[in-house]
Amino acid sequence: MTQDTHLTIAALHARVEAIFRRAGLNERQAGALSRVIVAGERDACKSHGIYRIEGALRTVKAGKVKPDAVPVLDANEGSAIVKVNADGGFANTAFELGLPVLAERTRALGIAALVINDCTHFSALWPEVEAVTKAGLAALVMCPSYATVAPTGGTRPLLGTNPFAFGWPRKNAPPYVFDFATSVAARGEIELHRRAGKKLPEGWAIDADGNPTTDPEAALAGAMLPFGGHKGSAIGTMIELLGAIMIGDLTSPEVLDYLGTTTLAPFHGELIIAMSPEAFAKGRPGDPFARAEQLFEAIVGGGARLPSQRRFAARKVSETDGIKLTAAEIEQLDRLLDKGLDAVA
Amino acid sequence: MTQDTHLTIAALHARVEAIFRRAGLNERQAGALSRVIVAGERDACKSHGIYRIEGALRTVKAGKVKPDAVPVLDANEGSAIVKVNADGGFANTAFELGLPVLAERTRALGIAALVINDCTHFSALWPEVEAVTKAGLAALVMCPSYATVAPTGGTRPLLGTNPFAFGWPRKNAPPYVFDFATSVAARGEIELHRRAGKKLPEGWAIDADGNPTTDPEAALAGAMLPFGGHKGSAIGTMIELLGAIMIGDLTSPEVLDYLGTTTLAPFHGELIIAMSPEAFAKGRPGDPFARAEQLFEAIVGGGARLPSQRRFAARKVSETDGIKLTAAEIEQLDRLLDKGLDAVA
Repeated sequence: MTQDTHLTIAALHARVEAIFRRAGLNERQAGALSRVIVAGERDACKSHGIYRIEGALRTVKAGKVKPDAVPVLDANEGSAIVKVNADGGFANTAFELGLPVLAERTRALGIAALVINDCTHFSALWPEVEAVTKAGLAALVMCPSYATVAPTGGTRPLLGTNPFAFGWPRKNAPPYVFDFATSVAARGEIELHRRAGKKLPEGWAIDADGNPTTDPEAALAGAMLPFGGHKGSAIGTMIELLGAIMIGDLTSPEVLDYLGTTTLAPFHGELIIAMSPEAFAKGRPGDPFARAEQLFEAIVGGGARLPSQRRFAARKVSETDGIKLTAAEIEQLDRLLDKGLDAVA
Repeated sequence: MTQDTHLTIAALHARVEAIFRRAGLNERQAGALSRVIVAGERDACKSHGIYRIEGALRTVKAGKVKPDAVPVLDANEGSAIVKVNADGGFANTAFELGLPVLAERTRALGIAALVINDCTHFSALWPEVEAVTKAGLAALVMCPSYATVAPTGGTRPLLGTNPFAFGWPRKNAPPYVFDFATSVAARGEIELHRRAGKKLPEGWAIDADGNPTTDPEAALAGAMLPFGGHKGSAIGTMIELLGAIMIGDLTSPEVLDYLGTTTLAPFHGELIIAMSPEAFAKGRPGDPFARAEQLFEAIVGGGARLPSQRRFAARKVSETDGIKLTAAEIEQLDRLLDKGLDAVA
């Protein structure tokens, strides 16, 4: 039998959460992780869906993330910086704890930041960006990664794929959201080319001597390149400065030193900047939300797409029809639930 | 006689300021404009130096900037947003008024924003970024421009060249600073190709039908493209949202409608976000400034360059040897001083 199964969002959540609970995660860690994994599947973003469960379990098994971590909020009254120490657990749990205080502080001050420290970063930044926009706020989110990207002109990997994400709230539509790596390609894409025996496109990578290469093996031994040449390289460097050094957490080279591999979820910090369009626009002509809709209409009317639309379309389908999983995927979920940490190397 | 002249920074400032005073700018407008123009010449950044004086004068003559504007500060006590209304004058004057309050607010709250409204934007963003770093703070600065750039996949110019700038303070070196257009190329570069009868590199522009073109004429009638494909396009869109719509000021299409040309300095707003590395890093291991130096050393040690180094090297020369101007440039300054607004069309 190889029939597909349709699970409701709630049913998939229950299954994923049970796997994490079985593997020893406490309720808060398991709940937050399950929410982002189910959000990935719901949005047909398979690379951030149930496929990621094993990586999370491997990181637990390797002792590089604390399954029973209890994040601690430092509301830091009187400041525009709210801090959450993740206690060595997953960033997602810490984010859930900090978000209401960040939203309240941003509404009061106009702009505020949430710093997450000592966390294992897991999955994409868009679930967090979207959560901030749900509070009616704009969000700018960034964090480092493992050092696998060479700054433009350099020969050594010093930057991570350092994701940069942004969101703007919309009243009658899913938010304007982008979330991308500041490298040309993801490391996984290079690995896929290697397995398929295919050459890389030009401009993706350099070899260990710093020369351009289209050979995936040489690229994996060398470094990936930033998107957009020196401009993307500068943004990647900015993310090391703001999303690692400024917040007193590990840089991409330090993350790689600490883990010794890129196969486990990375341990570092995260910076979320939230802004209240209402506070910024106060006293000025025009409603910022209505004006943004005019911009979006013009972009779509001119033939371009808004980012994340494929995810939002898939979400709509999942919300009515449920999430489709293959028989192999269901079996995999059953196996992970059955074996717990023994299911992973 | 075609001998070069060396002027001290102060002497060049006095000459430029006299030109602006003669053209009817009040002391504050003339002073702030002269400081950024002289900074451009000092850093051998000729495209932002005395070459720009005529554009400023043309904008005054066209009635699109108020020469006797007096910016008004709204310190907005209790908020993390400091506002300056430029009163229809140049952004630089408004920035000078707002900076001390922004710095104080950022030190108190950890993160704060300076919004400049109703200003004519002039020259580059790096003078402002550098001024924030001098206060020991990190800065993120952005503003729209004229609509000359099509979002990726689109056929119509809807975005500006929307500059994005960042600075990080360094204790014993000039700051880490980048400041770039989010288009692949500047509009001036396309114009230079047109005059030289040269084809454009691929990927710079599309024609009026949205097709890729290497013909400068077709590009000027069509649109420029964002840097880095859909990622740069997303950042350019973010700048319209944050640096125009959120702050209640004109977007790039609105700027072009208002001016009817790209030859005058653009009228819009500007967003400056400042962060205190000391406040963010408080209670965490490691000094953020020392850790940043390790990152910069690794970048340079790996063969890459830090941005803005050419400017800083030129600055050092100018500070000791003065600023070298050609006889034609000196004549031009004399002519502008002599004729005032009659010197420009």
